[in-house]
Amino acid sequence: MSTEIPNVSASAAAAEEEKAVLLYEPLLQYQQQQQQQLQPSQFNNTSQVAIVGSNLCPIESLDYEVLENDLFKQDWKIQKFQYTFTKWMLCFLIGLVVSIIGFFNNLAIENIAGTKFVITSNMMLARNLITALIAPEAAGSGIPEVKAYLNGVDAPAIFSLRTLFVKIVGSISAVSASLKIGKAGPMVHTGACIAAIMGQGGSKKYGLNWKWLQVFENDRDRRDLVTCGSAAGITAAFRAPVGGVLFALEEMASWWRSALLWRVYFTTAVVAIVLRALIDVCLRGKCGLFGKGGLIMYDVTSANISYHLRDVPPVLVLGVIGGILGSIYNFLLNKVLRLYNFIYKKGIFYKIILACCISIFTSCLLFGLPWLASCRSCPSDTSEPCPTIGRSGNYKKFQCPPGHYNDLASLFFNTNDDAIKNLFSKDTDSEFHRLSMLIFFVTCFVLSIFSYGIVAPAGLFVPVIVTGAAYGRFIGMIIGSHSNLNHGLFAVLGSAALLGGSMRMTVSLGVIILELTNNLLLLPLIMLVLLISKTVADAFNGNIYDLIMKSKGFPYLETHAEPYMRQLTVCDVVTGPLQIFHGIEKVGNIVHVLKTTGHNGFPVVDEPPLSESPILFGLILRAHLITLLKKKAFLQTPAPIGPDAFLQFSSNDFAKKGLGNGDKIEDIELSNEEMEMFIDLHPFTNATPYTVVETMSLAKALILFREVGLRHLLVVPKVSGRIPVVGLLTRHDFMPEHILNLHPSLARGRWKRLRFQFPRLGRLIRGLW
Amino acid sequence: MSTEIPNVSASAAAAEEEKAVLLYEPLLQYQQQQQQQLQPSQFNNTSQVAIVGSNLCPIESLDYEVLENDLFKQDWKIQKFQYTFTKWMLCFLIGLVVSIIGFFNNLAIENIAGTKFVITSNMMLARNLITALIAPEAAGSGIPEVKAYLNGVDAPAIFSLRTLFVKIVGSISAVSASLKIGKAGPMVHTGACIAAIMGQGGSKKYGLNWKWLQVFENDRDRRDLVTCGSAAGITAAFRAPVGGVLFALEEMASWWRSALLWRVYFTTAVVAIVLRALIDVCLRGKCGLFGKGGLIMYDVTSANISYHLRDVPPVLVLGVIGGILGSIYNFLLNKVLRLYNFIYKKGIFYKIILACCISIFTSCLLFGLPWLASCRSCPSDTSEPCPTIGRSGNYKKFQCPPGHYNDLASLFFNTNDDAIKNLFSKDTDSEFHRLSMLIFFVTCFVLSIFSYGIVAPAGLFVPVIVTGAAYGRFIGMIIGSHSNLNHGLFAVLGSAALLGGSMRMTVSLGVIILELTNNLLLLPLIMLVLLISKTVADAFNGNIYDLIMKSKGFPYLETHAEPYMRQLTVCDVVTGPLQIFHGIEKVGNIVHVLKTTGHNGFPVVDEPPLSESPILFGLILRAHLITLLKKKAFLQTPAPIGPDAFLQFSSNDFAKKGLGNGDKIEDIELSNEEMEMFIDLHPFTNATPYTVVETMSLAKALILFREVGLRHLLVVPKVSGRIPVVGLLTRHDFMPEHILNLHPSLARGRWKRLRFQFPRLGRLIRGLW
Repeated sequence: MSTEIPNVSASAAAAEEEKAVLLYEPLLQYQQQQQQQLQPSQFNNTSQVAIVGSNLCPIESLDYEVLENDLFKQDWKIQKFQYTFTKWMLCFLIGLVVSIIGFFNNLAIENIAGTKFVITSNMMLARNLITALIAPEAAGSGIPEVKAYLNGVDAPAIFSLRTLFVKIVGSISAVSASLKIGKAGPMVHTGACIAAIMGQGGSKKYGLNWKWLQVFENDRDRRDLVTCGSAAGITAAFRAPVGGVLFALEEMASWWRSALLWRVYFTTAVVAIVLRALIDVCLRGKCGLFGKGGLIMYDVTSANISYHLRDVPPVLVLGVIGGILGSIYNFLLNKVLRLYNFIYKKGIFYKIILACCISIFTSCLLFGLPWLASCRSCPSDTSEPCPTIGRSGNYKKFQCPPGHYNDLASLFFNTNDDAIKNLFSKDTDSEFHRLSMLIFFVTCFVLSIFSYGIVAPAGLFVPVIVTGAAYGRFIGMIIGSHSNLNHGLFAVLGSAALLGGSMRMTVSLGVIILELTNNLLLLPLIMLVLLISKTVADAFNGNIYDLIMKSKGFPYLETHAEPYMRQLTVCDVVTGPLQIFHGIEKVGNIVHVLKTTGHNGFPVVDEPPLSESPILFGLILRAHLITLLKKKAFLQTPAPIGPDAFLQFSSNDFAKKGLGNGDKIEDIELSNEEMEMFIDLHPFTNATPYTVVETMSLAKALILFREVGLRHLLVVPKVSGRIPVVGLLTRHDFMPEHILNLHPSLARGRWKRLRFQFPRLGRLIRGLW
Repeated sequence: MSTEIPNVSASAAAAEEEKAVLLYEPLLQYQQQQQQQLQPSQFNNTSQVAIVGSNLCPIESLDYEVLENDLFKQDWKIQKFQYTFTKWMLCFLIGLVVSIIGFFNNLAIENIAGTKFVITSNMMLARNLITALIAPEAAGSGIPEVKAYLNGVDAPAIFSLRTLFVKIVGSISAVSASLKIGKAGPMVHTGACIAAIMGQGGSKKYGLNWKWLQVFENDRDRRDLVTCGSAAGITAAFRAPVGGVLFALEEMASWWRSALLWRVYFTTAVVAIVLRALIDVCLRGKCGLFGKGGLIMYDVTSANISYHLRDVPPVLVLGVIGGILGSIYNFLLNKVLRLYNFIYKKGIFYKIILACCISIFTSCLLFGLPWLASCRSCPSDTSEPCPTIGRSGNYKKFQCPPGHYNDLASLFFNTNDDAIKNLFSKDTDSEFHRLSMLIFFVTCFVLSIFSYGIVAPAGLFVPVIVTGAAYGRFIGMIIGSHSNLNHGLFAVLGSAALLGGSMRMTVSLGVIILELTNNLLLLPLIMLVLLISKTVADAFNGNIYDLIMKSKGFPYLETHAEPYMRQLTVCDVVTGPLQIFHGIEKVGNIVHVLKTTGHNGFPVVDEPPLSESPILFGLILRAHLITLLKKKAFLQTPAPIGPDAFLQFSSNDFAKKGLGNGDKIEDIELSNEEMEMFIDLHPFTNATPYTVVETMSLAKALILFREVGLRHLLVVPKVSGRIPVVGLLTRHDFMPEHILNLHPSLARGRWKRLRFQFPRLGRLIRGLW
């Protein structure tokens, strides 16, 4: 079988991005084994070692940390208290800061927006420059990046102070310029950034460095905080605490625990309470127009919504068309992003040109399209002034005579939030003309797609909501009196349909819409629409965030295995020469291997002088090897070291560093003499890594890899006696692209047997290409 | 170290309940290995084998099933379509049936209850007899049983048709008798029962057997359906679709996937829509008093709830006291249940006596206590008639003169639902006397604890809500005009506090209360109360359902490891002699081992005649061995069998049987001659079981065991050459009771080192006891 598969070593490049182990076994393990060989009198000497070891155990949180010696029990209790307290405190701080940022963000948008379109458009251009020049990571929604991080992908610089700053400023200017882009995505990224920066104790680069926050030295704690931060972001953007929790659960998190649910809930509760208090202040004082809606942004409560069986068919139609529109939206957005990426590769000048074009195009449309609509006379029974006085209102005068208003202008010359409020409101069935609504829908649909990819921070939620509201209202107008539902409710359902078709979430979207509109009675219909639109859209393509992640090339690890993974064994995907270290290894060898490969984990093997037969001792990480080299823990002769070797290390040396803060092998200078010395790797090796047997199917290995959250998985042979380890699996080995590259015949059929039947045909086709 | 630990073989009994592997490798694996040794011409002969194999793969669902031969591709597509369609269809059916049962349940309760207390009390007694005699599994809430099932514990007969029937009838009669017990728990169990029975294709016992439903032959699919069923139960009980999803997620499910979220959401959406339609019918027609509230059960919407900073301290106090009360509630309930268990052990007669006592005691209290309250004159500004005419109303006349009402009677002589509605309503601040409220609170608190353990099906949600409402209202009365919140809102917050203190859920309770009361503006306060009461209560004891599960002795596998598990290696807990089979084993040996042990999984080892050195071939299940024995797939000589050996098996033979439907070894009759024959176990063995090395810490092995959802985990030696497998871990080996039994010194301190310091003191203390 293996002879038929060309043994392409394509994973060499892929392996360069291997990540450090999420879960690894502590020094403790090694200590326990050592202790069994030691005399009882030596126990007291190992207490120091135990402390070092005790901070090296990111299997579970410090909650389960145990010190060996009760001399240090007191210390440990303080440490545990500090850990628990700091974690909750951080959640509180994240909630507080995110809610304040969200509040002032909204405040700024509401107060800047509206009057001076051209000026703000220009301002936006200036800010785009900021994004393009200072922090290109801040462009776009940020949700795909955060989602990938929570899956275990450490994209560089996504959580820096610089990104945070640009995100906030850029988002305010872009949204207030009435571009059809949202603030939810940037708020999620902002929340995640704040959480990540706090979680790693500030940013060393800018001199903000809080020692007392540096208790989270493993991936798990940081992921927890980032999850809290992203939930806080949604909560701050939509004032939807439960929706925020569910969004983090359904869309963002790759691993979920009950304890995390509680922590996220705490964070969003803090956001909700702080926002509520700030709005309270606003209602009494002066905050511009913010806070008018209180905690509910688009309140559509009506005392008696009644709908019956005959209202269901229109809703079904709304769901089906919404699903199709949503999948088209995703498809087009993906294509436009690829086009933009192509343009961006040509240089920063093209980036800025593109941003200018989009923003001028937007301005032209906003000012030009209202001319298409005819003036409508003001209704006599309206509760608000007509035409509108001031910025926010349903009846914009534009160029109409007194007593008249322009319905398209009323939609275009508002912030997205106000437009949504107008569209969702119930007593406005006759306010808009059918054609105006269609123009508005098409404009929003197109503009939001083209605006997303430009360099400014941009969310997708609000544009989709406003587009969907226009769509739903348009459908409502067509159905007219055949339904009991008013056009406002159709707009709500239309938003749900388009959100479901584009984002493909169910429960979280249902709750977010519920919290946005405060209309519990509508919930069954919203659930129905979401289910239908998601089902329909899933038949065409994937979730918008997954598409963006894929186009950005993040190695996102899916929960489910591809069908052909059942047909492959782990041996079929293990490629390239495996770098193995001996239990006691020469310094020169280590340096050479670290310099010539990009691997982040190496199997450690003991061979006959040290053991009877070759045995797999464990797995050591690149970061730890670099620490050993840096501290020069070298031996003159290849002999095992005693426990006092630990004295020169502190727990911090083996903690997982913040993003981009790790040392590099190139920075370490060693003399020729030192290169000839040895390191005993045993105490620093994870002695019990998770292993799979070489005959295991890839699908089954993926379950272990994904569920336990590994970064390295060792492959051991079925029959012992040969080398004790045959390969090392990383995230990249499970990527469909990698596998299909190794086994190209799999790509052309879902069945393995096909490649036995058409191998030549396959090569022929490839030859023709 | 091991010399100090007495090697108690306490796991022998525990091992009797070992379960079949959740995840095991298919025959396919074996076929692949075989094929590598076969000539290409033999490929076509294996197609039949592949089909057999294809249904044997419960790693993932049939979604990922692949047939080897494209002759059968068409078949497979149909099968896949049938699988997917059936699964969604079942979710729909579960939703439909549960909502109809829930609806008629409510209808029956509302229409039976109220007037004839004594008669219904007697009726209830008769029904209790049903429960006690026919289906003792139907007693209690059912939530702990379902939760344990979803964790992987197959308690016998929890999902039988008999249980379902008794649950429905018993629940209606018990609730309508105004016992202080709820219907939510029984509804969850009912939903789970319906799901489980449908999932295994009906009940063979009662001749209901649908072949087309029997596509779910593994634990995972059945767990999915049961999760859907339990969510549907909550939704039907509280008309809370999102709350139902979250309840299933937060409280019930042990493993959660994004795909499951969607499926559960679909089910609860069906329930919500069907309920909505039925209520619609009711509002027009005649359904008694049901449906008065529409989809929202305890509507407390008020246009402008305003609360400010000064309202927060009372709410904090409410939360703290609620947490304390909740933990006391759990503590007392647990004690009472233990007492009841003690009484029940004496026989069915005592069970009935106890039920009689409780029901008479309840009746006495309900009729006696209102005499304590004085008559109050009717308010002049009330919207409803005073005193109340008919059954449901806020102003019960009891023994008062005309124009007066008895406030305690108004609370006691109502169903729980009506009492909650009264307590939650906003314009009733002066309706109740402070003393009446206190009496009502104490009575509810005590009665609900004593009523739970009796033989009738009983929920905890509603009693806790009503008790909490009385508590909250009482606090509200004390605070009086110091707060802006009306007493109805205090009652809502009090319910939240007591629910949080007893159930310890956060998000799901918040949403359930939101959906019950339709009051989004109150959400920040509800979240605050829930967080505080849960935090306070967690300091005292555990979640009520966990306490009940523990007292019932379910081996529930927690997500997190105990601290001492970090200190133990897997070797420390592996006990008893390990039963190993050879790759080709004598029938007599297999029968002997199956008859003398209760293990459900056995390692299969190949030894020198078959391989160069002893190697671990895999793991075989008891159920599969029994199938082999039953089909008499025997060989005259110990030689490997060819692929045609599969022809006598169908995929169904190796599917996981429904609960209690498996064959027993005692039922198989074999002649002496057959006992001397051999079975080739290789093709039927899971050739790539998950393994851990013997030096791995127990905590780390638990992560693998728990996250991947295993039932057996093989322990392999660190150094090869010795026997290739040193032990087999099952769920019971991770139970704290088992571990502490093996290592008693761990129980007296959380630190391993303590047992080195006080071993004699420990024994001394135990000696004194």
